[in-house]
Amino acid sequence: MFEHDPDQATEPSDTLAVTERTRHRRLREQGGTSRAELDAILRAGFLCHLGVMVDGAPMVVPTVYGTDGTTIYFHGSVASRSLVASPEATVCLTVTHVDGLVLARSVFEHGVNYRSAMIYGVPRAVADPEEKLAGLRCLTEHVTPGQWDYARRPSRKELAATALLALSLDEASVKVRTGPPDDGDGPDAELGVWAGVLPLRQTWGALEADPALAEGIAAPAHLADRVDRPLG
Amino acid sequence: MFEHDPDQATEPSDTLAVTERTRHRRLREQGGTSRAELDAILRAGFLCHLGVMVDGAPMVVPTVYGTDGTTIYFHGSVASRSLVASPEATVCLTVTHVDGLVLARSVFEHGVNYRSAMIYGVPRAVADPEEKLAGLRCLTEHVTPGQWDYARRPSRKELAATALLALSLDEASVKVRTGPPDDGDGPDAELGVWAGVLPLRQTWGALEADPALAEGIAAPAHLADRVDRPLG
Repeated sequence: MFEHDPDQATEPSDTLAVTERTRHRRLREQGGTSRAELDAILRAGFLCHLGVMVDGAPMVVPTVYGTDGTTIYFHGSVASRSLVASPEATVCLTVTHVDGLVLARSVFEHGVNYRSAMIYGVPRAVADPEEKLAGLRCLTEHVTPGQWDYARRPSRKELAATALLALSLDEASVKVRTGPPDDGDGPDAELGVWAGVLPLRQTWGALEADPALAEGIAAPAHLADRVDRPLG
Repeated sequence: MFEHDPDQATEPSDTLAVTERTRHRRLREQGGTSRAELDAILRAGFLCHLGVMVDGAPMVVPTVYGTDGTTIYFHGSVASRSLVASPEATVCLTVTHVDGLVLARSVFEHGVNYRSAMIYGVPRAVADPEEKLAGLRCLTEHVTPGQWDYARRPSRKELAATALLALSLDEASVKVRTGPPDDGDGPDAELGVWAGVLPLRQTWGALEADPALAEGIAAPAHLADRVDRPLG
């Protein structure tokens, strides 16, 4: 069935720190083992789902992130209720890319091709103005490379109004599934049912200028060059 | 800055149940108010991020879902550790579609166009075989319409091996941001900086047949017709 479960088995990673909660448990082939895989998954996107505990229940919030390879940065407001209640609370930050549907001969063997990363830790509120500026630059450039040097940077007042959180990448795990369905060598292969993968792709579309934009302001190359290109 | 925070203000919805945790708090314009919006967001995708509590910390797991408009179904294994530890635990299931980057004149006003839904509740493990079959059909047809009648359906043994969870849509909230950046009428409009939206689109790609597929088995229309079409 369609499922991609991080609660799956792999050997402890050589390069990613493995804890009880990042040790995969069931499908050996799907657990990631390298820091390079983690970096590639984080580089390929900009949206994460952040899990925080609020009043004893989990809350899952979509938000953008940026990373420098050691730390992942995100906005504090998304976790504000949790952080106010419990500033030392662990969060789980998950990044997922769906690459396609795995269409098997049997419904039971259906699945999803995907790449995902889960990062656990206690985020740190960035207070130092210089570090905050560097973190916001990292986040902005991760989402839209070239934009930090093009758009107006945060003023001192805006910087003070921005809550930025930093989370270490030390406790992380990755999961990847690729390739065709797994029932091509079983009895279901005789059923005459088509099997394979229906890929799903994310692509940047044509730029839509703000209707309020003054005449004669062209889009900069770092944005125009992205059009029709794949995400990641 | 790039952020889409569910912790934002709107009036209590007329049609979605509003609780302390689904009441948005800050940006009035972004809170959804109708069941139709929720249904549209859930219909437009098939991947959710499920937040469960494990050993006192949140765990955020990507998984597929299906919905009949009243209940959302997902696989039990993704929540297995949590459900074993605490079968009555509340989960948070979040579905997010990113529609584009909102590129403003100032970094501070950057954002994301998106649609998201958050559903809270205590999932119920579906035990009755008939209800389980109906739920799996709902999930399968939600992800890949036409596949339930095409692929081999679950055997009794497979059905028993499949854990299916049902979550009511009663406690839900939606959030949507659309349109251009908001700084077109402020002092930054004089900066001569291009502003607008860089859309992001998800599209189904060309079918990739399983290399193990026997000759002469063509893909069925319900799959072939999806190629090059947008998700949702």
